[in-house]
Amino acid sequence: MEEKIMNQWMKELGPNSDVVVSSRVRLARNFNDLSFTHHASDEELKQVTIKAKELLRENNEFQLELIGIDELSEFERKMLVEKHLISPEQTQVNKYKSVALSQDETVSLMINEEDHLRLQMILPGLQIEKAWGLADQLDDYIEDKIDVAFAEGYGYLTACPTNVGTGLRVSVMVHLPALSMINRVEKLMSAISQLGLAVRGLYGEGTDTVGNLYQISNQVTLGHSEEEIIENLLEVTQQIIEQEKNARELLLQEQEVSVKNKVYRAHGILTHAYSISIEEAMELISNVRLGIDLGIIEGIEPIILNQLMVMIRPATLQLTKGEKLSIEEREIYRAELIKELLN
Amino acid sequence: MEEKIMNQWMKELGPNSDVVVSSRVRLARNFNDLSFTHHASDEELKQVTIKAKELLRENNEFQLELIGIDELSEFERKMLVEKHLISPEQTQVNKYKSVALSQDETVSLMINEEDHLRLQMILPGLQIEKAWGLADQLDDYIEDKIDVAFAEGYGYLTACPTNVGTGLRVSVMVHLPALSMINRVEKLMSAISQLGLAVRGLYGEGTDTVGNLYQISNQVTLGHSEEEIIENLLEVTQQIIEQEKNARELLLQEQEVSVKNKVYRAHGILTHAYSISIEEAMELISNVRLGIDLGIIEGIEPIILNQLMVMIRPATLQLTKGEKLSIEEREIYRAELIKELLN
Repeated sequence: MEEKIMNQWMKELGPNSDVVVSSRVRLARNFNDLSFTHHASDEELKQVTIKAKELLRENNEFQLELIGIDELSEFERKMLVEKHLISPEQTQVNKYKSVALSQDETVSLMINEEDHLRLQMILPGLQIEKAWGLADQLDDYIEDKIDVAFAEGYGYLTACPTNVGTGLRVSVMVHLPALSMINRVEKLMSAISQLGLAVRGLYGEGTDTVGNLYQISNQVTLGHSEEEIIENLLEVTQQIIEQEKNARELLLQEQEVSVKNKVYRAHGILTHAYSISIEEAMELISNVRLGIDLGIIEGIEPIILNQLMVMIRPATLQLTKGEKLSIEEREIYRAELIKELLN
Repeated sequence: MEEKIMNQWMKELGPNSDVVVSSRVRLARNFNDLSFTHHASDEELKQVTIKAKELLRENNEFQLELIGIDELSEFERKMLVEKHLISPEQTQVNKYKSVALSQDETVSLMINEEDHLRLQMILPGLQIEKAWGLADQLDDYIEDKIDVAFAEGYGYLTACPTNVGTGLRVSVMVHLPALSMINRVEKLMSAISQLGLAVRGLYGEGTDTVGNLYQISNQVTLGHSEEEIIENLLEVTQQIIEQEKNARELLLQEQEVSVKNKVYRAHGILTHAYSISIEEAMELISNVRLGIDLGIIEGIEPIILNQLMVMIRPATLQLTKGEKLSIEEREIYRAELIKELLN
């Protein structure tokens, strides 16, 4: 695998990118005649792999390249997690685990993760519907070719009951620096939870919130159609966008000096620090991004911050540098890389 | 009075300027036939003024220009304090108080402060002996012309008993960022106190230590000759210089990353902040100055930091801006001025 770092959502901004970093759609699918991954025999896991390979070989539309997890170095596996292309679970080396990626990494397909097949579409900005369209298209192709586990009255069957039904998880990653500054995030998030949506940190369940980034996704996969699930997330996201934008206007009106101070200082530290932790960098990147969106800082492309978010993470950082680094060395190289990208 | 801001110790670095910012010598003298200022009648205060004026008019060597305190605006008076040319006490408007300054402000002479005459020499870097030579020369001239209060067995008589004897106060302002970083300042300062020297903050007794700047001066004015007092302070200062330099080497060897990080970040914040308090600015200026002295930062003249130390203070700042500013406006203009001077 060549060490390509940039992919589509790191190269291009999508609609509403001043609040929404990316949109993801994930579908869980299983072969009807094989046991779920966790209970499958080696022979069954092998069968999944063989059938998936065939499926992909015959598909010209998405042109997915299949990579065995055991072909990747530790850093390459972890970089795929940092880019949100595979789950941490999928990094465990196992000769039956693999991932298929499209050239621009918009499409990824994990094989023998919790479910036999997990399709994911990730697009920059607010593009849930487009991502769903692509996922649906790939799913149609798959279901046309194979017999998928499905039960009348339930829907798609999945390894974990929380995915049964549509097998659909839709999520948006939103950047909420202004709501955070005026201490409104917590209240908003608790309201969102009551609408059947889950709020998580940058790297999913149980991960901390850093850089004022939140992942909002549907909790329920059963009892609603795919369209309803998507419509619901879309509506809530539009409300979040509106609230964040109102908060930004309010900040500029009522706390102009302190916002400017925060933004400019963040820029000063990012362009000068000799060493920096990931948590501090994410916080400062968030402030600079807010500064760009508010027109306080000019001359920096907002996309650079989508890139930085991934590039400063440990595995991607060490792949970029081309060597294994100690924590101290990483903090120094991270600072160097940020300076280089911002100047 | 023209609003001249820069003077000699803000324009030129002296010997050992990597640790010693400036050296000062002050002599307290009183007319023999007039009561001390605090007990003097208006007629006596007037006499002091008249006699001092005559003295100065006839002196071609130092060419001091006499300025009545009541001729100055509030900011001009306070700026003289910020430049260490007059005491805070001397800013109280009184038609008999005045100050005489040489063109480069190396020499200042307060009239009707606590004592009738207070001569001061201030030079950049470690130049106690030279400053003493100049003070002695001006003193000789004065004593040649007037009858100074003096008592056999005591020496010069002064308003406050702590100045009786030589009437001499010698001080150095030292910059000790490295000793401060390795938490050795307190111990050093307590040792210094035991040698009969006083340690004070930037603006004298009772003022806080800011920017790792300390004033070291003689406590005792009686029972030692001027030369002994000066020799003692000089020796102690040389030891302080050595200790600070050792601490800097130690820091570079053992905490290189954290020192570089501190220095570069300080520079980043100073060149980017939108608003900054004096305390924070002094702390960051201290770090940048350390970075220059250690060769970590290049391309900034160290003298700029002597200038900044004065220029960011409230009165000098408002005189530079040419208008009265609120605290918030001052913090914004201070940040602006620092950026301008550092870029």
